[in-house]
Amino acid sequence: MEQIRGSQSIEFTQAPFLLSSASVVGSKESEGPLGKLFDMVNQDDLFGAQTWEEAESTMQKEACVLALGKAHVDAEKVRYLYGGDLLRQGIATSMGVEALQIPMFGLYGACSTSGEALALSAMSVAAGYGEYMLAVTSSHFGSAEKEFRFPLGYANQRPLSAHWTVTGSGAFLVGTQKSHVRISGVTVGKIVDYGLKDSQNMGACMAPAATDTIVQNMKDFGRNPEDYDRIITGDLGYIGQSILFDLAKGKGYDIKSKHMDCGMTIFDQETQDTHAGGSGCGCAAVTLAAFILPKIEKGEWKRILFVPTGALMSTVSFNEGASVPGIAHGIVLEHC
Amino acid sequence: MEQIRGSQSIEFTQAPFLLSSASVVGSKESEGPLGKLFDMVNQDDLFGAQTWEEAESTMQKEACVLALGKAHVDAEKVRYLYGGDLLRQGIATSMGVEALQIPMFGLYGACSTSGEALALSAMSVAAGYGEYMLAVTSSHFGSAEKEFRFPLGYANQRPLSAHWTVTGSGAFLVGTQKSHVRISGVTVGKIVDYGLKDSQNMGACMAPAATDTIVQNMKDFGRNPEDYDRIITGDLGYIGQSILFDLAKGKGYDIKSKHMDCGMTIFDQETQDTHAGGSGCGCAAVTLAAFILPKIEKGEWKRILFVPTGALMSTVSFNEGASVPGIAHGIVLEHC
Repeated sequence: MEQIRGSQSIEFTQAPFLLSSASVVGSKESEGPLGKLFDMVNQDDLFGAQTWEEAESTMQKEACVLALGKAHVDAEKVRYLYGGDLLRQGIATSMGVEALQIPMFGLYGACSTSGEALALSAMSVAAGYGEYMLAVTSSHFGSAEKEFRFPLGYANQRPLSAHWTVTGSGAFLVGTQKSHVRISGVTVGKIVDYGLKDSQNMGACMAPAATDTIVQNMKDFGRNPEDYDRIITGDLGYIGQSILFDLAKGKGYDIKSKHMDCGMTIFDQETQDTHAGGSGCGCAAVTLAAFILPKIEKGEWKRILFVPTGALMSTVSFNEGASVPGIAHGIVLEHC
Repeated sequence: MEQIRGSQSIEFTQAPFLLSSASVVGSKESEGPLGKLFDMVNQDDLFGAQTWEEAESTMQKEACVLALGKAHVDAEKVRYLYGGDLLRQGIATSMGVEALQIPMFGLYGACSTSGEALALSAMSVAAGYGEYMLAVTSSHFGSAEKEFRFPLGYANQRPLSAHWTVTGSGAFLVGTQKSHVRISGVTVGKIVDYGLKDSQNMGACMAPAATDTIVQNMKDFGRNPEDYDRIITGDLGYIGQSILFDLAKGKGYDIKSKHMDCGMTIFDQETQDTHAGGSGCGCAAVTLAAFILPKIEKGEWKRILFVPTGALMSTVSFNEGASVPGIAHGIVLEHC
């Protein structure tokens, strides 16, 4: 039987396993440090579609089909799908996974959604609600700029604190069959609001939530940073990372030597002009699928804490002067 | 131990209970047939806030606080919150539940979100992930018209097939303690797309999904319409209802004598000028809290199937010519 731990966590004793994963990305991601590791790359970022939104949906579908194919599991054997994206009313997901015809739960957790989807998939498998669950998230640079910022045609300048939204989708098949990666626990995040209002500095907006979830994970499981080979945030970027280090240290946890950020890993800041780092629901997802999971599978990393981070805002909340709170969900992944 | 049933359902054998609920609505809802049943009414629809979005957030917070208060449960005792709304990036929920500081999962299922939130809350309680879970959803006429249609100042004419978005929020405390209403099963919906593109006729867009979920629920649990005192859809309205009857009959289920629709119940079509009926994440939620649950508590209805229905679209998907698929989640509620 699963156990609740501390105030926000669950430990899975007969843990669900990560059976397969897939990553689909665009051209810029393929030119970055992880470029050779992704499963599928499309060079014009449209994936054969007419719009960026359709392209994003296509990425989600392809990522799901690839993850299923790798595990030799038919879509109809998947009990429930948990998915989300950054667009208003989650249309990238609705239109993307429709063809799979898997009963589904639509999610929104900004860039933390891959953590949310993995947590709910793991919770559902561990509870015996099905043999297979599918978790999928996506983001697309074109659709995200249109959704949150300026039309790309304006060619406006981006501040150095801005992130570059990853064009990518990651899908994960979670199930009961044994594999080399198990999800041993989750820490569900709270909304944390330090009152920041600069939506062009999302790293600063999300760092308090990342700190809160990481520290809570340590407390709930009675662990220290040394108990993890890596503590991996989603997309804090360079600015968010330094704030995370300070805040965590203030709470008694020095995580510097263990920390990695997907947004800082997926792009080369110097040559790719991506400023603070990558971001988006796809950033943490494709980095997990292509870079992190293989290291856990091989046993190079024995236990990691994966913490996708989200900034909760919309153009409406921004225009109305609301602050940008953050949320982060923690997933404990172990080699087995 | 819970049992999976058929291809989309779960039966909870030691079922979670609905411990308390609360409904908060605006002025038009208070003037409708259910007006006297709601817990809280605000006459200017702003709930003391400066914007409709903030007003919607305030409704969510008030609904949660009321539901918790009725059950004498502190927010810190609630393990996880499942919530969502119709706005882009779910800001009504993020800003609304922030003050409660409950670890949370943000959801998006359009007007089906109350079903999604109740399903996940029930699944989490039944799995032993906590003693209490909170499910909350909301919609607001002002923020929804702004999000999906035209600025209210335009005073544009609405077609007779259009729905009137309910200003309201419903919150539900789900837990392990015995009460007079238990959640005995859920049927998770698939995305169903008949290719309709008229977002001003959401009843027609959602009716196929409602049919699919209702029929699947009957198959998964081996039941007939006669096994339910009521089969209650979220917001199909007058047009969607007639389509539902036809589609269900075509699949061998005559549900006419058992059917009720929250969108047709909450407003008086003749005197309130609401055309096809009410809609929105709040519509099914406040009707459940104020009208349906008291009847189950008293034993007037022994078993009902509650099926909130959602139309999956955004202004972007509409402008790009995409169809409007639907989704519906089924929740079985029983008197005990």
